[in-house]
Amino acid sequence: MVDSVSQNVDLASESTWSPREVELLEVTLQLLQENGYDRLTVDAVAATARASKATVYRRWPSKAELVLAAFTEGIRQVAVAPETGTLRGDLVRLGELVCEQIGQHAGTLRAVLVEVSRNPALNEVMQQQFVDQRKSLMLEILGEAAARGEIEAAAVDEDLWDVLPGYLIFRALVSGRAPTARTVANLVDNVILPGLTRDMDS
Amino acid sequence: MVDSVSQNVDLASESTWSPREVELLEVTLQLLQENGYDRLTVDAVAATARASKATVYRRWPSKAELVLAAFTEGIRQVAVAPETGTLRGDLVRLGELVCEQIGQHAGTLRAVLVEVSRNPALNEVMQQQFVDQRKSLMLEILGEAAARGEIEAAAVDEDLWDVLPGYLIFRALVSGRAPTARTVANLVDNVILPGLTRDMDS
Repeated sequence: MVDSVSQNVDLASESTWSPREVELLEVTLQLLQENGYDRLTVDAVAATARASKATVYRRWPSKAELVLAAFTEGIRQVAVAPETGTLRGDLVRLGELVCEQIGQHAGTLRAVLVEVSRNPALNEVMQQQFVDQRKSLMLEILGEAAARGEIEAAAVDEDLWDVLPGYLIFRALVSGRAPTARTVANLVDNVILPGLTRDMDS
Repeated sequence: MVDSVSQNVDLASESTWSPREVELLEVTLQLLQENGYDRLTVDAVAATARASKATVYRRWPSKAELVLAAFTEGIRQVAVAPETGTLRGDLVRLGELVCEQIGQHAGTLRAVLVEVSRNPALNEVMQQQFVDQRKSLMLEILGEAAARGEIEAAAVDEDLWDVLPGYLIFRALVSGRAPTARTVANLVDNVILPGLTRDMDS
């Protein structure tokens, strides 16, 4: 399972958008950071990118879809395995990336979540693009660690693959205590790695 | 630190509201479950509880504050340590409670988070009431486990106290994969307990 997923990672990191569409999504992210989700309009995206409104609406019929696509595209560009050579290094780097990405967009992501919970089609998009991409990346990192003998392949839990990013996202979006570099290091050293190596001594 | 916190748990489980106010908060939770956050109005709460609007608005000037108070009150009533006699039992019970509470109100909680991120005062209330209450409870459970010799007191990380509830809340609110009883058991056995007992063998 780990092997077949890691073979798909190259595919997952290819953009499904044209260069012009990528440009529109970059403008969307930029306006989101400047003005927040509430004040973003599809019209403003079109105007800033010198595109017709119809062009934008044809691809992304709602603001929520546009914003979700912008995030997915923004994260796709860094959705490559860190390849630090050790599991600890890879996990710390991945955790730091999650903190960076979420920290810049916490308010917007909260707003998108509300839209997602109202809109099953949008939820489907989020699962397929955002979540599956992250899962491939994590399973690639864990598969490489198993190949290096750092963990048992059996220690990889299909249901709990996202404890590391999930807890950090919880901290940034829900708890109001933004995670720090120390949070990431302690989470990896004191929670994630002890769990993944729990059978190595016996 | 653990000892002084556990002494405060009895205090934390006393309601700060009058019986009449508790009744208004119960009506709020009931209407939320029936109609969702968007369609809830303070007026409907007053009408259903046969209270004057002024009574409700005096205590909770906004819908978000009313809803947050209703959640905090609803969760306060179960914010007592499970006392199963083992750390594993306590953690599994706590995890199951989190799943139950969040599962019933995922959509509403997402909406409240958006309000909280717009409103610093509301964030303060959420931190003080909701988060601090949960933290006391978790530190009580961990303090008892340390007293029984199940874990080292030093294994309790002040920054990472909420990995168990936090990841489950992430699963319910953000990831779209609602946690199951198996999720809770695997999280406790394969992630949380290995982390808390990581120094016990050496």
